[in-house]
Amino acid sequence: MEKIVIALGGNALLEEGGKRTYEAQYLRARSTFASLASILKNNMVVITHGNGQQVGDIILSHELSRIEAPVHQCVAMSQGSIAEILANAYNDVSQKLRIKKEIIALLTRVAVDASDPAFKNPTKPVGRSYTASEAAALEKKGWAMKKTDNGWRRVVPSPIPKEIIDIKAIESSISEDTIPIAAGGGGIPVIRKGKKLVGVDAVIDKDLSSSLLATSIGASVLMILTNVPYVYLNYEKAGQKAIKEAGLEEMQRYLEQGQFEEGSMKPKVEAAIEFVRNGGKRAIITSLDKAPQAFAGRFGTIIG
Amino acid sequence: MEKIVIALGGNALLEEGGKRTYEAQYLRARSTFASLASILKNNMVVITHGNGQQVGDIILSHELSRIEAPVHQCVAMSQGSIAEILANAYNDVSQKLRIKKEIIALLTRVAVDASDPAFKNPTKPVGRSYTASEAAALEKKGWAMKKTDNGWRRVVPSPIPKEIIDIKAIESSISEDTIPIAAGGGGIPVIRKGKKLVGVDAVIDKDLSSSLLATSIGASVLMILTNVPYVYLNYEKAGQKAIKEAGLEEMQRYLEQGQFEEGSMKPKVEAAIEFVRNGGKRAIITSLDKAPQAFAGRFGTIIG
Repeated sequence: MEKIVIALGGNALLEEGGKRTYEAQYLRARSTFASLASILKNNMVVITHGNGQQVGDIILSHELSRIEAPVHQCVAMSQGSIAEILANAYNDVSQKLRIKKEIIALLTRVAVDASDPAFKNPTKPVGRSYTASEAAALEKKGWAMKKTDNGWRRVVPSPIPKEIIDIKAIESSISEDTIPIAAGGGGIPVIRKGKKLVGVDAVIDKDLSSSLLATSIGASVLMILTNVPYVYLNYEKAGQKAIKEAGLEEMQRYLEQGQFEEGSMKPKVEAAIEFVRNGGKRAIITSLDKAPQAFAGRFGTIIG
Repeated sequence: MEKIVIALGGNALLEEGGKRTYEAQYLRARSTFASLASILKNNMVVITHGNGQQVGDIILSHELSRIEAPVHQCVAMSQGSIAEILANAYNDVSQKLRIKKEIIALLTRVAVDASDPAFKNPTKPVGRSYTASEAAALEKKGWAMKKTDNGWRRVVPSPIPKEIIDIKAIESSISEDTIPIAAGGGGIPVIRKGKKLVGVDAVIDKDLSSSLLATSIGASVLMILTNVPYVYLNYEKAGQKAIKEAGLEEMQRYLEQGQFEEGSMKPKVEAAIEFVRNGGKRAIITSLDKAPQAFAGRFGTIIG
């Protein structure tokens, strides 16, 4: 029995190009839990998950309807809606596959630094697209706007997670009988101002938060599940090569060579390196359906 | 030290007629926790809360933007957004007032019966208003529509809560060191279909769910905090009279006389009666700012 953090990627709930309805996500989540059954049965697991598409839809619905909701509140909403989908799907799978554990979703706030350079260089487009003159007006209101292929859009920063605020409660909820869902969407972003916690308009990378969470609870394994079976060198180029096992220094070298795509494989590799550097036994990056084989050491990219 | 469920009404987060921004709710929530400080310090407390205005805004934003989200998903979203507000406000107050406990919000699903008569008679208006011809089209799509003072609106059922699905996790999170927030907005409504849990478009009364939760965890006290200091006989009529202490049979008699307003004081009284009938020591209905005096037995309506 190991203590594991499993970080679910977007494909755990959504098929590529598929519908983003509750039903479609519920069915997809059932397959996800079925893939993970053996790991869930035999270990102490914390589930984390992304929220890219879902929080995008929530932000968009508020922008289009002109009903105000700050980005951090939209992240909190997505923790709620995704948790319901995951929990309902888990309950179905756990009955069928006799996984005798409760699931529970914990709203999780994650602190970032107000001085994080990301606040000066927001990069993540959210919400609807605007014309140039609308964008200019919104910039005056305080939004950062960027021209994209789809017109002008709001961009928000993606700062580095520094502290899982709700860590004590998460830690005490981990047991042989309970599977907590935590740090959804990378966590609700807050900054510390003196003794206050202030919600901030940002989105946090879910793999970096999962790594921080895994370190904070003393997990031995961090599994980052995505839509590719391995991390690759020269990905989608001549000489593409799967990385099977790699040490810290080797991965760090690849990272510095610029082998991994920004906003995609790069933060996953960074999260994995960070976890092992901080004492984790091994980090695994692989595809969702290969999780049990990868956990057994027979598949996927294993770092450590 | 007692085990208490405190059900927060809409006024714990919103001033009457005030703004529904994050900031306004955060400031209001701080006052709420300041009022409750002595109770929180000396007891084992679970916090529940309403979501009427907030889930209304979330449903409205989705209807106006035509981005699909079933009502149960909107309830889940409101658990997330309200939890963030409450938790951030609590952390501020707990630092100032030295309440040495963690707060943690647990996403909570609550099962209702598919055969509940409420499903044949939906009563809660949600979302935007429509013209008569739009309403006719939406009825064909399966929505129940009702003519209101603000045009035609969708109405959803408010069935009786039957089971707190996530009860085990809530129960194990209660401790001298932790204040769980649970069953927000009455809970995410689901029905059991065989072994499956299916999200359903409904809203559940938060006081009835709080009562069920309080019974399920063996709480000794259920406090329902609202915007009036007492339950009244002949409310806002000649001969208005505050009820101070009352037994079960007395309250039941008033209920049968139709003394309490539907959708307002009536479900609170029903929730209180139900809790005491199922073994609770006392149920208290009073205003938020009088909670400590009422808990000490010196104020409010005390049933039991």
